[in-house]
Amino acid sequence: MTDALAIARELLRCPSVTPADAGALGVLERLLRDAGFDVHRVTFSEPGAADIDNLYARIGDAAPHLTFAGHTDVVPPGDVAAWRHDAFAGEVADGVLYGRGAVDMKGGIACSVAAVLGYLAANGGRPKGSISFLITGDEEDVAVNGTVKLLQWAAERGEKFDHCVLGEPSNVEALGDCIKIGRRGSLSGTLIVDGVQGHVAYPQRAANPVPEIARLITALSDDPLDHGNEQFPPSNLEFTSVDVGNAATNVIPAQARAKFNIRFNNQHSVETLRSLIEQRVAAALSGGRLKARIEWLPSNSGAFVTKPGPFTDLVVAAIEQVTGRRPKLDTGGGTSDARFITHYCPVIEFGLVGQTMHKVDECTPVADLQQLTAVYRGVLDRYFA
Amino acid sequence: MTDALAIARELLRCPSVTPADAGALGVLERLLRDAGFDVHRVTFSEPGAADIDNLYARIGDAAPHLTFAGHTDVVPPGDVAAWRHDAFAGEVADGVLYGRGAVDMKGGIACSVAAVLGYLAANGGRPKGSISFLITGDEEDVAVNGTVKLLQWAAERGEKFDHCVLGEPSNVEALGDCIKIGRRGSLSGTLIVDGVQGHVAYPQRAANPVPEIARLITALSDDPLDHGNEQFPPSNLEFTSVDVGNAATNVIPAQARAKFNIRFNNQHSVETLRSLIEQRVAAALSGGRLKARIEWLPSNSGAFVTKPGPFTDLVVAAIEQVTGRRPKLDTGGGTSDARFITHYCPVIEFGLVGQTMHKVDECTPVADLQQLTAVYRGVLDRYFA
Repeated sequence: MTDALAIARELLRCPSVTPADAGALGVLERLLRDAGFDVHRVTFSEPGAADIDNLYARIGDAAPHLTFAGHTDVVPPGDVAAWRHDAFAGEVADGVLYGRGAVDMKGGIACSVAAVLGYLAANGGRPKGSISFLITGDEEDVAVNGTVKLLQWAAERGEKFDHCVLGEPSNVEALGDCIKIGRRGSLSGTLIVDGVQGHVAYPQRAANPVPEIARLITALSDDPLDHGNEQFPPSNLEFTSVDVGNAATNVIPAQARAKFNIRFNNQHSVETLRSLIEQRVAAALSGGRLKARIEWLPSNSGAFVTKPGPFTDLVVAAIEQVTGRRPKLDTGGGTSDARFITHYCPVIEFGLVGQTMHKVDECTPVADLQQLTAVYRGVLDRYFA
Repeated sequence: MTDALAIARELLRCPSVTPADAGALGVLERLLRDAGFDVHRVTFSEPGAADIDNLYARIGDAAPHLTFAGHTDVVPPGDVAAWRHDAFAGEVADGVLYGRGAVDMKGGIACSVAAVLGYLAANGGRPKGSISFLITGDEEDVAVNGTVKLLQWAAERGEKFDHCVLGEPSNVEALGDCIKIGRRGSLSGTLIVDGVQGHVAYPQRAANPVPEIARLITALSDDPLDHGNEQFPPSNLEFTSVDVGNAATNVIPAQARAKFNIRFNNQHSVETLRSLIEQRVAAALSGGRLKARIEWLPSNSGAFVTKPGPFTDLVVAAIEQVTGRRPKLDTGGGTSDARFITHYCPVIEFGLVGQTMHKVDECTPVADLQQLTAVYRGVLDRYFA
């Protein structure tokens, strides 16, 4: 029962579309308790959101402490008639395992559990340090009752993590091609320019906000926020809309509004970025009767990176030995729970190949499950060496 | 019956709210025919607009030919209960004549008719040259069956005009303070920038039209169209709206649109201005996958001016002698039928004081009617001297 394929098939047979658990965490609880883990099931609540079940399991009480993070919830299967194999049957055909969550990310969880059970069996049942699992059922939807609360809960219990491996599907084309070591942050706002309304025939009596917002858009678009660094491309600001809504051809409008979004690297925080943009607007403003201000949208999405060093070297070495590929250390793509974990310990993401995630016929070669299990085992052996 | 007040009261008693004539042109027809004029009543039609009655009357067949233009239609009275005197009774109280059209412009027509009748009586009933009246009932509304068609009709008959006095209320504060000698033109368009839609996280795959339209707005707003001249202030372009309508914070939009209006002087025509703006857009465009074009709104409103010279000098002299004021030669304000007349002969506008036009209790001092009649008589005496 320590075979990744068997664990993955058992997980896939639980139709755990967020917020349903459908028995998925129970599969892991049984396996880990049998292996000697101290297992906790924790339910979190939030007004307006479904209650969500989470699992935390730890074995060992010494440092270093390596935690494997993941989620057992999946996105809906979509048109079930379009699937060649039942989305919740865990069928294998021609060496390929099919099912919703095969790569995102029940397959990844199965490999990490199989690798840990194999490592413990080879090391007298106890790690030289601590190993834990941080598993949530709330990642694919609003993600308010999942990893973010599970980490707070663990911190309040005094849990300290040294490093984390999140088994999200990080590879683009083939197992071993990519480790995610961070993400850009995202911040959105609306630039508002207030002028003085008037008749186009008498512009001297008005103050037109349209050419002014045009000047500010140009200033904010042209001036680089930074020049990037080894882990990140330059931060980038894009104006996504500019609106006045004036239908009268003979009226100078009173206000113009422009929306923008910034994807920023680890040279900024949300706070420093807001301050920088506000300074640039103030510096570029013509003044007089024209006023400018920014309404910021709330952001919980800062930039983060786990800088290359001994931990990433160790993961790269394990990947290279098993797959023969030297992974790229990447910071691109969408968000994951790594944005929460980074506040507690260095985190990297390495899992299966993402091509079929969220699609009909989501699947993974069984050979990839075996290779990913071997990579995780290589990480464990090196980490506790 | 050659008294301007009597003619004005008779005209005011005809409720000739556009398109109704209500007998107004008949009042003029009778007076002019009795004085020896050759009088034509001409009705014009246009699909979607009311048929409108117009009047053309001429006396004399030699040059020079001076024509008095005007309109007998009026705007609606609005809340009739708010008037101190019936809007269509032509009442006089404390030396002031009340009624819709008192200044705009039945009063002006009455003065020109009274002045011409007086001039003819003093000159044996015939002018040394020709005098005519171009009077329409379609100026205040869409103005498609009025002066524009009456001028074409007259041209087809072989009528040639040397100069025109349009009796619109040109004075701002007191009779004699202002002659209108021209108008700026007006041209509106929409600047459209097409780019390539995409995700804000991958701007290199998109082409954002927002910073591009901002650059073009700045280029068109900052670069003067001209520096004005003796008769006109500099031409001016105002952007009145800029719109994208993109609600998604993570999407770079495909298109941005900006509306603008140009008030231009006699250094441009509609055609040369379109060409100039299109050249400036082409020169300022970044190119690549960003395209720009302009959708122009139709314009029949070109700039025109009757340049100061012997004719304006003659009118100024007549005004100065009667009122003691030296009028300003102005090109400001809204449109009038002068924009059509200018294509046939030099035209100036001089009439009553405009303060109450289109308002409740529209009115003119009776003394102004007498003075304006004297001014027109002074113009006739000088013109045919």
